[in-house]
Amino acid sequence: MMDDAALMERLDVQAIETPSWAFGNTGTRFKTFAQPGAARTIWEKIEDAAEVHRMTGIAPRIALHIPWDRVDDPGELARFAQARGIGIGAINPNLFQDDDYRLGSLAHPDARIREKASAHLEDCIAIMAATGARDLSLWFADGTNYPGQDDFRARRRRMREGLSGCAARLPADARILIEYKFFEPAFYYTDLADWGAALAHARAIGPKAQVLVDLGHHAQGANIESIVAMLLDEGKLGGFHFNARRYADDDLIVGSTNPLELFLIYAELVAAEVDPQTRTCTRGVSYMIDQSFNIEAKIEGMITSILNCQEAFAKALLIDHAALAAAQADGDVLGANRIVMDAFRTDVRPILAAWRRQRNLPEDPLDAHRGGDYLRAIRRDRGTASAASGYGD
Amino acid sequence: MMDDAALMERLDVQAIETPSWAFGNTGTRFKTFAQPGAARTIWEKIEDAAEVHRMTGIAPRIALHIPWDRVDDPGELARFAQARGIGIGAINPNLFQDDDYRLGSLAHPDARIREKASAHLEDCIAIMAATGARDLSLWFADGTNYPGQDDFRARRRRMREGLSGCAARLPADARILIEYKFFEPAFYYTDLADWGAALAHARAIGPKAQVLVDLGHHAQGANIESIVAMLLDEGKLGGFHFNARRYADDDLIVGSTNPLELFLIYAELVAAEVDPQTRTCTRGVSYMIDQSFNIEAKIEGMITSILNCQEAFAKALLIDHAALAAAQADGDVLGANRIVMDAFRTDVRPILAAWRRQRNLPEDPLDAHRGGDYLRAIRRDRGTASAASGYGD
Amino acid sequence: MMDDAALMERLDVQAIETPSWAFGNTGTRFKTFAQPGAARTIWEKIEDAAEVHRMTGIAPRIALHIPWDRVDDPGELARFAQARGIGIGAINPNLFQDDDYRLGSLAHPDARIREKASAHLEDCIAIMAATGARDLSLWFADGTNYPGQDDFRARRRRMREGLSGCAARLPADARILIEYKFFEPAFYYTDLADWGAALAHARAIGPKAQVLVDLGHHAQGANIESIVAMLLDEGKLGGFHFNARRYADDDLIVGSTNPLELFLIYAELVAAEVDPQTRTCTRGVSYMIDQSFNIEAKIEGMITSILNCQEAFAKALLIDHAALAAAQADGDVLGANRIVMDAFRTDVRPILAAWRRQRNLPEDPLDAHRGGDYLRAIRRDRGTASAASGYGD
Amino acid sequence: MMDDAALMERLDVQAIETPSWAFGNTGTRFKTFAQPGAARTIWEKIEDAAEVHRMTGIAPRIALHIPWDRVDDPGELARFAQARGIGIGAINPNLFQDDDYRLGSLAHPDARIREKASAHLEDCIAIMAATGARDLSLWFADGTNYPGQDDFRARRRRMREGLSGCAARLPADARILIEYKFFEPAFYYTDLADWGAALAHARAIGPKAQVLVDLGHHAQGANIESIVAMLLDEGKLGGFHFNARRYADDDLIVGSTNPLELFLIYAELVAAEVDPQTRTCTRGVSYMIDQSFNIEAKIEGMITSILNCQEAFAKALLIDHAALAAAQADGDVLGANRIVMDAFRTDVRPILAAWRRQRNLPEDPLDAHRGGDYLRAIRRDRGTASAASGYGD
Repeated sequence: MMDDAALMERLDVQAIETPSWAFGNTGTRFKTFAQPGAARTIWEKIEDAAEVHRMTGIAPRIALHIPWDRVDDPGELARFAQARGIGIGAINPNLFQDDDYRLGSLAHPDARIREKASAHLEDCIAIMAATGARDLSLWFADGTNYPGQDDFRARRRRMREGLSGCAARLPADARILIEYKFFEPAFYYTDLADWGAALAHARAIGPKAQVLVDLGHHAQGANIESIVAMLLDEGKLGGFHFNARRYADDDLIVGSTNPLELFLIYAELVAAEVDPQTRTCTRGVSYMIDQSFNIEAKIEGMITSILNCQEAFAKALLIDHAALAAAQADGDVLGANRIVMDAFRTDVRPILAAWRRQRNLPEDPLDAHRGGDYLRAIRRDRGTASAASGYGD
Repeated sequence: MMDDAALMERLDVQAIETPSWAFGNTGTRFKTFAQPGAARTIWEKIEDAAEVHRMTGIAPRIALHIPWDRVDDPGELARFAQARGIGIGAINPNLFQDDDYRLGSLAHPDARIREKASAHLEDCIAIMAATGARDLSLWFADGTNYPGQDDFRARRRRMREGLSGCAARLPADARILIEYKFFEPAFYYTDLADWGAALAHARAIGPKAQVLVDLGHHAQGANIESIVAMLLDEGKLGGFHFNARRYADDDLIVGSTNPLELFLIYAELVAAEVDPQTRTCTRGVSYMIDQSFNIEAKIEGMITSILNCQEAFAKALLIDHAALAAAQADGDVLGANRIVMDAFRTDVRPILAAWRRQRNLPEDPLDAHRGGDYLRAIRRDRGTASAASGYGD
Repeated sequence: MMDDAALMERLDVQAIETPSWAFGNTGTRFKTFAQPGAARTIWEKIEDAAEVHRMTGIAPRIALHIPWDRVDDPGELARFAQARGIGIGAINPNLFQDDDYRLGSLAHPDARIREKASAHLEDCIAIMAATGARDLSLWFADGTNYPGQDDFRARRRRMREGLSGCAARLPADARILIEYKFFEPAFYYTDLADWGAALAHARAIGPKAQVLVDLGHHAQGANIESIVAMLLDEGKLGGFHFNARRYADDDLIVGSTNPLELFLIYAELVAAEVDPQTRTCTRGVSYMIDQSFNIEAKIEGMITSILNCQEAFAKALLIDHAALAAAQADGDVLGANRIVMDAFRTDVRPILAAWRRQRNLPEDPLDAHRGGDYLRAIRRDRGTASAASGYGD
Repeated sequence: MMDDAALMERLDVQAIETPSWAFGNTGTRFKTFAQPGAARTIWEKIEDAAEVHRMTGIAPRIALHIPWDRVDDPGELARFAQARGIGIGAINPNLFQDDDYRLGSLAHPDARIREKASAHLEDCIAIMAATGARDLSLWFADGTNYPGQDDFRARRRRMREGLSGCAARLPADARILIEYKFFEPAFYYTDLADWGAALAHARAIGPKAQVLVDLGHHAQGANIESIVAMLLDEGKLGGFHFNARRYADDDLIVGSTNPLELFLIYAELVAAEVDPQTRTCTRGVSYMIDQSFNIEAKIEGMITSILNCQEAFAKALLIDHAALAAAQADGDVLGANRIVMDAFRTDVRPILAAWRRQRNLPEDPLDAHRGGDYLRAIRRDRGTASAASGYGD
């Protein structure tokens, strides 16, 4: 358990990427509601991401999605962002929105489609170089809808080949993050359905490949915090896509469904930092939001998400690990649980407000944004975009 | 258990509606793949539905979705369909694809939106009159995404008021079918989330309101055949939306995920027909497909769906009910189960082929369509439509 | 939102029943671990329940399970309890642990078994009279494991008949609480599987029948707080069995899996108290724990459970309902959510400690029990019972 | 697709182990119903297993559970079985029914308990030698019920150490089969919760460790046939525990919930046999039943289970793999699906009856058992055992 000063120093290291695609209009398969002031271009999305960082202080990068965010000179995106106080985060290829990908991308039965997909990944690697991005964040819609539609083992081998080829093309200090997802848009079989499937590929490929955990991509009841612990133990946790879900891949505001779960995930990360076997891995973890603000204001939703992460992190830092280890060693089930829950029960809003004051950030970032010039300006200047900018993964 | 002749007579009474929206391009939130030859207008959709009926003999009606299928003179749709050998089925209003419905329709906090929704329902009732439709099939996207977003009881009372008002405007021989859905597009709370919620409204409203069961709208593990039995016992089963699912509302081809389940649902319907308490209710049940053929050929997918229903119905007719009742009364668990499973194990393809031969239908409807003139013509004449026609419920 | 003084008065009205069966050794189907000092008789269970009430001040009754708690003179149980400062809560019949109930109880195909079950219910009504209990809390293990094993509608009608007969035998001021459960011990079909099934019976039977909500008896993803709201709106919420679950009917300590959910349930109850349509119903609600402390100390587990309920109730009382209603009317999704979450975020431990001090209760009930004479005495005097006392529902 | 003669030869190679523990009385946590004639000792269980093999011809081994089946001279069990026409299958240790295992076995925080667990495994290895068993089938109840109760990574490392130590003690031709289970009896965290967790251990330990797939141990919606395919592709599929489930680990008769799923699992195994990369692995796979016949007659239930496996295998052999591969290569979604479904639709009861006639087996094994001398004799001689023999994994 740490004192307030130490806690506030630790809060300084938190950094969470916001996704460009969440600043534009997004929706469900039924409807994308247009919102007044929603960003229409990647330039506006970068502006919005900068606003989120101005309000919160811990959202210093924006992740890009290609081709949605494609521009003639990707380096200009980095300079435009830098001028607004933020950097470029992970590059996210799109291997699902072309008619060619109806039956998959890297796992597609047709070699021509697989090559097209690989070529797109190569493009993205070039954009990484131009923007200074470290992570290539890979989500695949690959899967099948009907028994017999395709051969599981053949698809797995094609996927392995495509991932290996992609990793081989990466520069030495870059990584692919292999994301898994339980289902959707495939509804019978998904090529990378769980952490086990992703880990097997990441191990076979080697140090350039790690696993990405999206909180909404698990089966009902999955204990995500323990998956995080296992991936850390394997040295293979590459990053997170934060969001919340109750049913499917709901992409709600992270922490809104079960704040205890988010706190327990952070608790694993905090604990692994002091373990020599896992410390290195924790330092490389990328924290990214991946959500869809379908009915709520987008920048407000993003600020809320960032603050929920900060709250969970702060509470996790309050866990008395020495006392916890002692209770665990004693087999004191309720005593150990209470130590963890007491950290969760603590109201960290005052300490977070103090941290913001000291860092010259607005004490109440949501209110500051709601009442600020930026929101007024974009509502006035942007109007209401009519089309969706596409969905994230 | 019935002999072949009786079985073939019973097969004649089966009639399943196809949904207009499944003949156009549809997709997931990630992508709608355009298919060559997919219908672009309601007129083409009616043509496709007629083809399905020509091939199968048991798909004599097409359900409409308003406003997707709106035309100046709805009566013309009925005449156009009739000229091609089919009729108009249920009318499906759309209360989810207007920006006004961001926070709901009949349950919306704002009275202005509720009135707009009610006015749309009134429009649909007029279309029912013009087309000769009996059923107004009501699915609502109403719900909330976050705790506190709205008041459950207030929403419930508004929904009740809207449904009652709608039923009151129906002609005497028409019905509203109240559909429930476990989740999506709302991810925290859904106003009509289960059969209990729908039944409570239907009972309060009276004989003009019944419940619609969509096979994909249940929680994991829900025993749908027993829900069917309970609704029949209450006299409140109004109809089905057939499809298959493994995860969420996957809208796959009915029977493709667990053919035993579809058979057991038909078994309940067959059994309820000979029970004086439930016979009347079974006769009013509407059978409708509601699916989304995202990656497979649409008319082929529809034919397959209709044939899967026919297979399940034929097998259900083979159950030896006298022997089953005796085994149940004896508490012979495995004996009773075996009687049901033996009907399921029976290969009914030969008898169904014979039934088709006798009715001058193609013995193999799927092959007949694949090799037939109709498919060749639409591929040639229609081209590839670029836009989605919208999603069903 | 209320001030501290008003809050503390409201906390006085909370009263939660503890179940006798949780004080004895219980387990999973794999193993019942014997715990030193676990209660061996109903008398010891009453002593333990009194200890929980001494420590917490809000657990003034113990629910009984018949025949596990059967004694020659049930009135003596009431007097024994009263002498220790507590009363007798609900009576829980057992219709699942006799070999005769292999295929069900009230829904059994054999009339002889149904009559035996009804006779047991009559016995329990007599015990209600003798002990002053108001509620007959009915959980049924009735269901089937295999398709075809029994007839759904026939079972439903038998269940209706049995429930009606039982209600008819109740004195005027007593109630049956009809509990539903999604599955287990039946794994194909459960006769009372959800709130809709229970509500249909309760409505048909009339004012003596209400529905009991056990938090662990729902499908994955079910929104329990909205079910609570609907049952209140129907005037049919009779009571709760509190516990927590992540997978099945896990019977963990209430609030341990998702404390936000428990808080939201209390929020519905608090809100319904000020609605004239639902106020009466809220006042009759019975709050009961139903858990199984398989690996943790039992009395400690019970105290923790009671405190978790108190914490959730206190936080629910902090919701600013006027501000919430305004945000909801405005369609301010995130504003409304934040009002609710801010109440949840509040650390109510200080105010609860103050409340306890003022009521002469131990400030830290768990520590007080752990360090107190009672625990020392039962460990010394009771030894380790070897057998399970049976499982709750 | 094979002709009947080839099919019948392939049917000869099928061999499924029956578990000793399913022949005794078993139940849920609520009740174990005593059945007249249920086996009371390991000798009687072997007699019952021999009856199942006499009736079906494909159940030539019985798996043992230690200590339930412990006798002074384990070699005598093998000789007793051999005299009745069957052999000894896998040895199943019990690391969950001793009070010491309250907080786990190999993952327990206390080294003393871990050593006790390892010593029990060593005992079981000795029994393997004495009975000629090849597989040590390892299921662990290890896990936690509450957040914070124990440290995930520490538990994982202890589990790894215990498994490695066990594998090291095995003779060269023997294997440990590492079973995973999504939940139960632990309800917050399970040490081996999914195939990914088991595979990571099996890979680290090496060729003596393989993964065991129990059909009831997955999250809702998991695609088990694809997990089978991945484990085959990794060369790590060691065996199956067959059963069926709808909700949790229901342990129903295999194939009773979704016969299509069982068929698709067999389809993967049949397909992998002709792939040079996976052929060796398929040949080592152990097929075992693991069920609990709570309400149905036990030997009948076991015969039904064996026959359901045979039916699924026979249908899988009917798949036209050449046509399927062609349809898959063409991207013909519905064509490929239909090829698989047509095999499933085939009624294989006649060919299986013919196979039995030719092998001098009863054409209808269930009827033969029901009407035979064996059943009559055990009902007469054994009476009704009152206690459960314990639960399987």
